[in-house]
Amino acid sequence: MGLSKDSKIKMTSVFKRGENNLITDVPGVKVGHCTLKDAERDIHTGVTAIFPHEGNLFKDKVLAATSVINGFGKSAGLVQIDELGTIETPILMTNTLSVGAAVDALIRYMLKDNEDIGVSTGTVNCVVTECNDGEINDIRGQHVKQEHVYQALENADVIFDEGDVGAGSGMICMGLKGGIGSASRIVNIDDIDYTVGAMVLSNFGFPGLLRIDGKPVDVSSITERKEDGVEKGSVIILVATDIPLSERQLRRVAKRATVGLARVGSYLGNGSGDIAIAFTTANRMPHYGDSSVVDIKMINDRVIDKVFQATAEAVEESVYSSLDHAHTVTGIRGKKVYALSEVL
Amino acid sequence: MGLSKDSKIKMTSVFKRGENNLITDVPGVKVGHCTLKDAERDIHTGVTAIFPHEGNLFKDKVLAATSVINGFGKSAGLVQIDELGTIETPILMTNTLSVGAAVDALIRYMLKDNEDIGVSTGTVNCVVTECNDGEINDIRGQHVKQEHVYQALENADVIFDEGDVGAGSGMICMGLKGGIGSASRIVNIDDIDYTVGAMVLSNFGFPGLLRIDGKPVDVSSITERKEDGVEKGSVIILVATDIPLSERQLRRVAKRATVGLARVGSYLGNGSGDIAIAFTTANRMPHYGDSSVVDIKMINDRVIDKVFQATAEAVEESVYSSLDHAHTVTGIRGKKVYALSEVL
Amino acid sequence: MGLSKDSKIKMTSVFKRGENNLITDVPGVKVGHCTLKDAERDIHTGVTAIFPHEGNLFKDKVLAATSVINGFGKSAGLVQIDELGTIETPILMTNTLSVGAAVDALIRYMLKDNEDIGVSTGTVNCVVTECNDGEINDIRGQHVKQEHVYQALENADVIFDEGDVGAGSGMICMGLKGGIGSASRIVNIDDIDYTVGAMVLSNFGFPGLLRIDGKPVDVSSITERKEDGVEKGSVIILVATDIPLSERQLRRVAKRATVGLARVGSYLGNGSGDIAIAFTTANRMPHYGDSSVVDIKMINDRVIDKVFQATAEAVEESVYSSLDHAHTVTGIRGKKVYALSEVL
Amino acid sequence: MGLSKDSKIKMTSVFKRGENNLITDVPGVKVGHCTLKDAERDIHTGVTAIFPHEGNLFKDKVLAATSVINGFGKSAGLVQIDELGTIETPILMTNTLSVGAAVDALIRYMLKDNEDIGVSTGTVNCVVTECNDGEINDIRGQHVKQEHVYQALENADVIFDEGDVGAGSGMICMGLKGGIGSASRIVNIDDIDYTVGAMVLSNFGFPGLLRIDGKPVDVSSITERKEDGVEKGSVIILVATDIPLSERQLRRVAKRATVGLARVGSYLGNGSGDIAIAFTTANRMPHYGDSSVVDIKMINDRVIDKVFQATAEAVEESVYSSLDHAHTVTGIRGKKVYALSEVL
Repeated sequence: MGLSKDSKIKMTSVFKRGENNLITDVPGVKVGHCTLKDAERDIHTGVTAIFPHEGNLFKDKVLAATSVINGFGKSAGLVQIDELGTIETPILMTNTLSVGAAVDALIRYMLKDNEDIGVSTGTVNCVVTECNDGEINDIRGQHVKQEHVYQALENADVIFDEGDVGAGSGMICMGLKGGIGSASRIVNIDDIDYTVGAMVLSNFGFPGLLRIDGKPVDVSSITERKEDGVEKGSVIILVATDIPLSERQLRRVAKRATVGLARVGSYLGNGSGDIAIAFTTANRMPHYGDSSVVDIKMINDRVIDKVFQATAEAVEESVYSSLDHAHTVTGIRGKKVYALSEVL
Repeated sequence: MGLSKDSKIKMTSVFKRGENNLITDVPGVKVGHCTLKDAERDIHTGVTAIFPHEGNLFKDKVLAATSVINGFGKSAGLVQIDELGTIETPILMTNTLSVGAAVDALIRYMLKDNEDIGVSTGTVNCVVTECNDGEINDIRGQHVKQEHVYQALENADVIFDEGDVGAGSGMICMGLKGGIGSASRIVNIDDIDYTVGAMVLSNFGFPGLLRIDGKPVDVSSITERKEDGVEKGSVIILVATDIPLSERQLRRVAKRATVGLARVGSYLGNGSGDIAIAFTTANRMPHYGDSSVVDIKMINDRVIDKVFQATAEAVEESVYSSLDHAHTVTGIRGKKVYALSEVL
Repeated sequence: MGLSKDSKIKMTSVFKRGENNLITDVPGVKVGHCTLKDAERDIHTGVTAIFPHEGNLFKDKVLAATSVINGFGKSAGLVQIDELGTIETPILMTNTLSVGAAVDALIRYMLKDNEDIGVSTGTVNCVVTECNDGEINDIRGQHVKQEHVYQALENADVIFDEGDVGAGSGMICMGLKGGIGSASRIVNIDDIDYTVGAMVLSNFGFPGLLRIDGKPVDVSSITERKEDGVEKGSVIILVATDIPLSERQLRRVAKRATVGLARVGSYLGNGSGDIAIAFTTANRMPHYGDSSVVDIKMINDRVIDKVFQATAEAVEESVYSSLDHAHTVTGIRGKKVYALSEVL
Repeated sequence: MGLSKDSKIKMTSVFKRGENNLITDVPGVKVGHCTLKDAERDIHTGVTAIFPHEGNLFKDKVLAATSVINGFGKSAGLVQIDELGTIETPILMTNTLSVGAAVDALIRYMLKDNEDIGVSTGTVNCVVTECNDGEINDIRGQHVKQEHVYQALENADVIFDEGDVGAGSGMICMGLKGGIGSASRIVNIDDIDYTVGAMVLSNFGFPGLLRIDGKPVDVSSITERKEDGVEKGSVIILVATDIPLSERQLRRVAKRATVGLARVGSYLGNGSGDIAIAFTTANRMPHYGDSSVVDIKMINDRVIDKVFQATAEAVEESVYSSLDHAHTVTGIRGKKVYALSEVL
């Protein structure tokens, strides 16, 4: 549950952490995994699903925005988020070569609950994000199937695992075993406590880059510098909040994920698809509805600094948490990737 | 082959047309269709594939850029084109709810010819574009399978059909039967003849909006104004050229597709995913290669106006050509969509 | 006052025109000119000022967005509009080489009424737009001074002149005398009548491109094709409305100005700085204020199509109106530019 | 000259520093200041000018791009850089309320050397950047005049001062005296040594945020937390290089300035106009010239990681250097701002 209090990783924090120190501290948000591990078949991959709220997402969309920090990535659905400012499906995470299968399954899942899609109304914009786990997973095998997507969706809950689970099963971060990580912060505005939650799928960086709370960490005993110098990773960052924000403000918040990445040592490598998506549960856009005019609340930008700072903190800690919970794995072609706990 | 000389549609043209008046007039470009029509099962859909050149696209990428004219669309692969300025796969067109299946199939197709992907090098960015053909096609049936994608790819040739074929099978444009259309223009720079080719998947607009060469066309006898007033269409526009352009210039060229759309009567409706992609075969980016520095040619922007104007012309004519070649179709729920030829 | 009913220019219109067929039909909006004409000194330039509302704009900002249609332009203030989604000053139009002077004067004007700027609060984002009138004006003389900016601001009113006045004094559009033009449309949403108003500073295009209501206009008797083929123009488009829109929606509306430009014959030439700015008077952002959370209204995007279409219409007609009201001028180096009325 | 070897600030560096550890280590780049200090009149401001090369910039433009990290800023000229991918004037830095005067003066300066501007060719895009020095400078006095701009331009040289000089005279960074800072790094590609140089105008952040080489610095003895919590700062970052890059790649490089900012403790505050501009001297675009096709070189993106990392390092160190060279100042309203050296 986030970075545990007795974790060997310590991070100074300006803001109070949420109850579980997870993205699900934002009321209504749920996360589920389907983990595919089969060492004999070199399978180390999976699916992670995030629900922005518990209702019908297609009929009751959440306001959202993206920030393409580095676009070497194959995520689906970003273009429409930016145009319409909404998310209308659960968000999936999986491996890069399974994005097609995941989109296909998520469409089927959405059709099931919405008989109007493709008949009396338009289609549906499925949001599927990805990182490349080919270093330890048989990614060419395209092992993620519809059933795995459905399982991840069905497993969604407030409490969820971090580290090498779900989409995080085969991910490598800073040369160490990475994957799913999460954290949350409490932000007070006009005497009301709101929550900013972050979740990452960490798969970026090189051995030697990692910094924890500003200090370089020597991981040379358990990692080797790559010869080719080509990053083949990515990182997906979700930011959820119940603070009332407009689409423009959500884009600004998503951009602050960069700060968290830079703090842990990333310089936004060429081969890393660094994609951030932010949504707020405080503003909804109905698909139907009697009125053509919708009431929205947004904070005045003059108080948005704490949202930015809380986001940067939660993203930074989410990366640590992904490393903190991961286990040493031996993958395809005998590739062994160690957990950070081996040196801390 | 483009708008035929004896077509009832006449369009004034500043530039000379290419040999076949098709996007394939750009040397190396090929187009193939797989058409799925089964009236009893309400299937009116398909796949269209475009190859930017005849070699290994992954190892020898073309410079490219996109313009999201209106982002109510679910196309895959756009984010990476913008970041890296290259296309490394054939480009697919299909229906909206088959994007997942098409991405999945295209990945498989690329893996087949590139054993390094996902092993010794990174993954691959599949470009799959879409329009919603749910008005006449059983789109919820997700009838496009891997075999159809492969057939479209295998059918690619210099000469190809237009109208209600391939991905165009179920498309509706301005209340009329739309689909695939293409055109080309010759642009002379420093005494060298270059080609600008365009191809559209037309599925946008409403009855009453259509203008041909500036003049409104009365189609009221064969169309009915929709009651809900919600556009559920889209239009995909590809622009190919052998003019040496940089990624920045290709983005500018892609943007000029908007002019062609506006000329035929579009006002870039909310529900229309209007996506343009431009690439040049004149500048290549090798995936491997001895040198880290690549020679590129680009025109000086002071002569780019004719490229803009030729693009606008070719896109406008491509839309006419899609209408010109289409046939009247009766689709799902008894919906009958007439060909423009019924009134011209 | 807009395109007059007995104007020789006829444009079919889906929407009803506003009372004066001017941008000032949007309640609160005012426009003023300062015209600098001195034929002996080759001066044909000026300043036009637009007030989004009648109150203190710095303390009570309007929601706004921009669309850089073609960025060959030197307008000031656009970056901050996009980041913060607001306009906090009157908007100025002038010639390209007077942007510095106009920014300087507008800062001074804002400081006068706001003693907090630069002391107890931050600075102020002045919005100054421009076109190049160097074809007939001695633009190198930088003749616009602070007093002219102040005069334009002071002259602001609901009724204002069009054609070769204010910033429009030296502008050329399609080879004809252009300048200031305006139009408005009534849009009904949920039984409420709203207004969309447009205003242009027209200085784009070439002889031979002009189309009126879709039909090419032969102006060859009064224009000559330029030899160098380099467009040195620009067009500034303002869209004002009282429809409740978010910043994201305003960006979408601003983008639809492109449709109006394409309809009159533009293909968005390389050398034309085509900049659109849209604002709504329906949503305000206070600079100070007790509450950190602000109530905003926005329409559901499913009804935004009429706003798009009305914008395209009003922009198209604004260009016609700028030509309709302009007079033949002889400028610097004996350059004679004819009014469209000479051939209509 | 950059961070001196015996500076109390130590920063680990992956890359070798350039000869002078200044942006001017990139051959051809020159920097000049005009410092306006008059304590009795509360004047603590100035102008800094950067020349990308020594020739006629208008006729021989450098390829360039921008990254608007946070657009709460009033810089001029950014829109055209993005559209055309070039810079054609020296770049100025000054205070926010003097941008108009600086643009006006730079236009005049450019007209002087280019008789074609505004007559036989188009206008000129002046690049003027800014930060708000109103905390210690009488910014409302608009004290920067044409003569100061000219002096800064004339003073341009390879060796230049850092800290509270030129535009940096009145800047505050992390609650300490900030201003001008610079650094450079050597990047080897295919056995050729290239240079990446950075220069900042530092005016961002709050007391308590500063980190040096990852470690928080306690500056509480010489700073006070602000009560209003509104950042009124900004930071301008220039990145110069002789590495052959395309406009797209320059945009990517400019974006990596964010990493340097995050490392020193910024979270990209709302009120900070964080603007980065990158240019390369290796690719030129002639204003005139016989050929319409220009040869360009660009590195393959697969080797761009070291350019990103060197940029992040140089920007981080530039901020330190701006603090390292600044002196304690007492400004308007008795505001005293201490130099970092007081606590190191």
